[in-house]
Amino acid sequence: MLLTILYIIGITAEAMTGAISAGKRKMDWFGVMFVASVAAIGGGTARDIILGHYPVGWIKHPEYIMITCIAGVFTTLIAPWVVRNQRLFIVLDSIGLVVFSIIGCRVAIDMGLPPLICVIAAIVTGIFGGLLRDLICRQTPLVLHKELYASVALFAAGLYLTLLCYGIEDSIAIIITLAGGFSLRMIALKFSWSLPVFHFEQEQTEQGTPTKGK
Amino acid sequence: MLLTILYIIGITAEAMTGAISAGKRKMDWFGVMFVASVAAIGGGTARDIILGHYPVGWIKHPEYIMITCIAGVFTTLIAPWVVRNQRLFIVLDSIGLVVFSIIGCRVAIDMGLPPLICVIAAIVTGIFGGLLRDLICRQTPLVLHKELYASVALFAAGLYLTLLCYGIEDSIAIIITLAGGFSLRMIALKFSWSLPVFHFEQEQTEQGTPTKGK
Amino acid sequence: MLLTILYIIGITAEAMTGAISAGKRKMDWFGVMFVASVAAIGGGTARDIILGHYPVGWIKHPEYIMITCIAGVFTTLIAPWVVRNQRLFIVLDSIGLVVFSIIGCRVAIDMGLPPLICVIAAIVTGIFGGLLRDLICRQTPLVLHKELYASVALFAAGLYLTLLCYGIEDSIAIIITLAGGFSLRMIALKFSWSLPVFHFEQEQTEQGTPTKGK
Repeated sequence: MLLTILYIIGITAEAMTGAISAGKRKMDWFGVMFVASVAAIGGGTARDIILGHYPVGWIKHPEYIMITCIAGVFTTLIAPWVVRNQRLFIVLDSIGLVVFSIIGCRVAIDMGLPPLICVIAAIVTGIFGGLLRDLICRQTPLVLHKELYASVALFAAGLYLTLLCYGIEDSIAIIITLAGGFSLRMIALKFSWSLPVFHFEQEQTEQGTPTKGK
Repeated sequence: MLLTILYIIGITAEAMTGAISAGKRKMDWFGVMFVASVAAIGGGTARDIILGHYPVGWIKHPEYIMITCIAGVFTTLIAPWVVRNQRLFIVLDSIGLVVFSIIGCRVAIDMGLPPLICVIAAIVTGIFGGLLRDLICRQTPLVLHKELYASVALFAAGLYLTLLCYGIEDSIAIIITLAGGFSLRMIALKFSWSLPVFHFEQEQTEQGTPTKGK
Repeated sequence: MLLTILYIIGITAEAMTGAISAGKRKMDWFGVMFVASVAAIGGGTARDIILGHYPVGWIKHPEYIMITCIAGVFTTLIAPWVVRNQRLFIVLDSIGLVVFSIIGCRVAIDMGLPPLICVIAAIVTGIFGGLLRDLICRQTPLVLHKELYASVALFAAGLYLTLLCYGIEDSIAIIITLAGGFSLRMIALKFSWSLPVFHFEQEQTEQGTPTKGK
C-alpha cells in the first residue's frame, strides 16, 4: 500500500536525522543505531504505550527496526552528502510527518477513541520521535520551538478526521490529507511561518520570593 | 466532588508552572501547551502506564487536556501577574500535590496492590509531572533536590493508607490527608525544611581508574 | 536460584552508581533513592512497558525497591569507599549487565516473541537503567558512547538464544552466557575496546540552508 511505502520512507528519513544528531554527540555505532531507531519509531511506540495499544508496532514488525538500524549506520558513511542534500531530507521528513500523523489517527480511530484523542495520538506519533532524539542528545527539543511542525500533525489529523466524518472513502481521505499536510509544511518552511513564541525572562528565580515582574 | 474540584485546581496550577518553564526556553504556543499538559497530567499518565492501568486518565476525560492547554496559553498573557502572585501558586500547587497523591494512592488501592506500591503510585503521580517538565526544559529536576516535595507525597500517601486501615470513612480520610499534607508542605516552606543533601565531588572522573576518594 | 542472587547483586551495584550520580548533582535523600531505583530497575520497567508485560517486575516484588532505596542511602555514607573500590563495582555492574540481559531475553521468550525482539528486550533491560540515570542527572548517556556496554548485552542475548536453540538446558545456557558475557566485558575494559565512534561536525547548523558539507 501507498501508506506503507511512505511510512518506510518516513522512518528512514527520521533515522538519518537521528544518526546525524548522534554524530554531533560523538556516539559509537550502537548509539547511532539507538538514536536513529528512537527518532524513527519512538513516536509510534510512545503512542502505543499511552493508548495501551499492544503489541507495539515494531514488535509486530521487527523489520522496521532493521531498517532504522541500517539507515543509521549507513548515514555515518554518507554524512557530508546528507548535509549537502538537506532540502531532500526536509521533504522526506515532511512526508514522514504527515504519514505518521495519519497512522496515529488511524490507530486511535480503530480503538474507538473520541476525536480529540485521535488528534493527540496523531501529534504524539508525529513529534515524539524527534522529541526523544533531542532529549537523548541533550538539545532543547526543536519540535517545541521551531516552525509549524506539531501544527502540521494537528492540521493533518483534523483534515483526515473531517474527511472521514463526511463519508469520504479512506484511501481518498489519505491522499487528500497527504497532499494538504505536505503542502502546508512546505509553504510554512518557504515563508518561515511559525507560531507566536512565548519568551519569558524572570529577573529573580528564587522560588517562594515574589518578584516585581517584568 | 471535592476531590474533582481540587484536582482541576491542581492541574491548572501545574499547567501554569509548565507554561512559565516553556517561556523561559522561548517555546512557541504549541510548546507551551505541550509542556503545560505534561506538567499537569504527566504524573498521572506515568502512574497509569507503570501500573498498566488502562485507559490512561485523560483518555477517559479529554476535557482535562483542554483545561491544561487553555491554562498554558492563558498563562502567556498574564505571565508577569503569575510571577507577582507566586505565593498563591505555591499554595495551589501544594493542594495539587496532595490531591495527586491521594488519587494515585486510590488508583493503586483499587487495583489491589500492596501498600508500598500504593505509596510509590502516590509519589509518581505527585512528582512525575514536574520531573518531565524539567527534563524537557533541560533543568535539573527541582523535585529531586529542593524542599520537602516528594516527602509530602510520601507523607500524604502514608497518612491516607493508615486512616483507611483503621476503618475511617473514605471522604473523612481524604479531608484529614488534605489538611495534614497541605500543612506539612506549608510548614516545610515557611521554615525551609529540607532533606539532607548528598553532595559528592569526585576529583577524577575517568571510569575504570580508582581514585583516592575525597 | 543463582539468577535471583546475581540479580540482587546487579541491582544493588546499579543503585550505588545511581546514588553517586545523584550526589554529583547535589540531590537530597529522596533524589538519591529515586535515581538509585531508576538506575537499578528502570531497564526492567522500560522493557515491561514496551512489551506490555504487566505487572511490571517490581510491582510483583516490592522488596526490590526496598533494596535499591537502602543501597542508595547507604552509598551516601560510604561514597569515598565506593570510589576507591571502583574496580569492584565495575565487576558487579558487569555481572548485573549480563544477568539483566538474560532476564530480559527470558521474558521476551516466554511471551513467544521473535528472536530479534528478544535481543532488543535484553538490550533495553541492560542499558535503559543507565540511560535514564544519565538523562535525569543531565549527562550525555554513557552507554551510548563508551566501551562495549550495549554490545555486551547484544552478545549475551545472542549467545543465550543460540544455546537454547541448540537444545542446551536452560540452567547450563545461563551459566555459559554469564561466563561469556562477563569475560567479554572484562576483556573489553582491559583492552579499552570500543565500537567505532561517529563524530560529525556541522559547520552551519541553520536548518533549511544547504551547507557545503565537510
